[in-house]
Amino acid sequence: MSAIVAIPEVTRKRMLTLQNLLQGWQGEKITSVQISEITGWKDSLIRHDLWLLGYNKGVSNGYRKDDLQQAIGQALGFESEQVNCCIAGLNRLGAALLDECTTEGSVFRIKAVFDSNVNRVEILRSTFPLYPATEMNWVIKQEKITLAILTVADKDAQTMCDRLVKAGITGIVNMTRAVLKVPDGVKVENVSVVNALKMIN
Amino acid sequence: MSAIVAIPEVTRKRMLTLQNLLQGWQGEKITSVQISEITGWKDSLIRHDLWLLGYNKGVSNGYRKDDLQQAIGQALGFESEQVNCCIAGLNRLGAALLDECTTEGSVFRIKAVFDSNVNRVEILRSTFPLYPATEMNWVIKQEKITLAILTVADKDAQTMCDRLVKAGITGIVNMTRAVLKVPDGVKVENVSVVNALKMIN
Repeated sequence: MSAIVAIPEVTRKRMLTLQNLLQGWQGEKITSVQISEITGWKDSLIRHDLWLLGYNKGVSNGYRKDDLQQAIGQALGFESEQVNCCIAGLNRLGAALLDECTTEGSVFRIKAVFDSNVNRVEILRSTFPLYPATEMNWVIKQEKITLAILTVADKDAQTMCDRLVKAGITGIVNMTRAVLKVPDGVKVENVSVVNALKMIN
Repeated sequence: MSAIVAIPEVTRKRMLTLQNLLQGWQGEKITSVQISEITGWKDSLIRHDLWLLGYNKGVSNGYRKDDLQQAIGQALGFESEQVNCCIAGLNRLGAALLDECTTEGSVFRIKAVFDSNVNRVEILRSTFPLYPATEMNWVIKQEKITLAILTVADKDAQTMCDRLVKAGITGIVNMTRAVLKVPDGVKVENVSVVNALKMIN
């Protein structure tokens, strides 16, 4: 849950990018001009975003990297607490994301993987917490899972989405091509490689 | 390459979502109110987007699905021609994307997978076109590859990006956490599950 909710979505997206940039930045300081050169954002926009975050510690020769990272993390409200997630849909993409989401320093923990077609043998053999989709309700409550990554087949996406929402999930990363209908209060982010290819083509 | 370039990025994104929605839509017709109910966009916005695309064939009881799909495809310029792509980085995510991008009806074809650490044995064994990254220049030219999906480790992302651009790539789907610096004329779309989780948290 975000500590501050008044930050516009576009600013939030840019700040996530800036955090990734700082993560790989070698220097102790960075200027808004340097940020601008890499990202293509105007430096006035960068300063405005940081002002929205309540950050005003720019010095004449740049921002202190550590300080800026901490400020962005705090303002966006995902720095400290662990966030429990699940993956719905056990395919190659779902399995690959297990690696992706558990990279060093991530606050996100995959506490369960659900699939409609798992049997007892697969569950016993698996090296991660795999459950049949029928167990979803109690697992999500017991493991305090709030977010889900949806990687089922397109045709099953809305049904699985409805089940996740009913079980208490408040945010879904939708990796299917289906357009999901969710009740108010549930957030959806669509992540699609094919859509991304279409954007740059 | 897009046929029309004057369509704003936000409209393009919404139209890609609308196309996915139409793909799974059962009826022959759809109204802007129905689109609005599922997507949450105001119906005036939907009508404006379609007007930007030069589409004005709405009838009193809705748009014809087939007709609308065709119009969006034509306006965004990716309906007919095959687009050749490559994946840079052979890991579990890269392998999973081989499936993802070759779904039925997709115009995108994965013509090559590049990795810095492949040897002759792996190449002989692989069921897809795998090459060492050192072969990139001639493969990209010969296979007429224009787009790349970048799935290398974060620390190698900028170096691999530079090599792809040098070899003639004009668009990159960046699945790493690195923020890429590219010359004018090269497009980047960042696709990150971790960022998506941060957006909905």
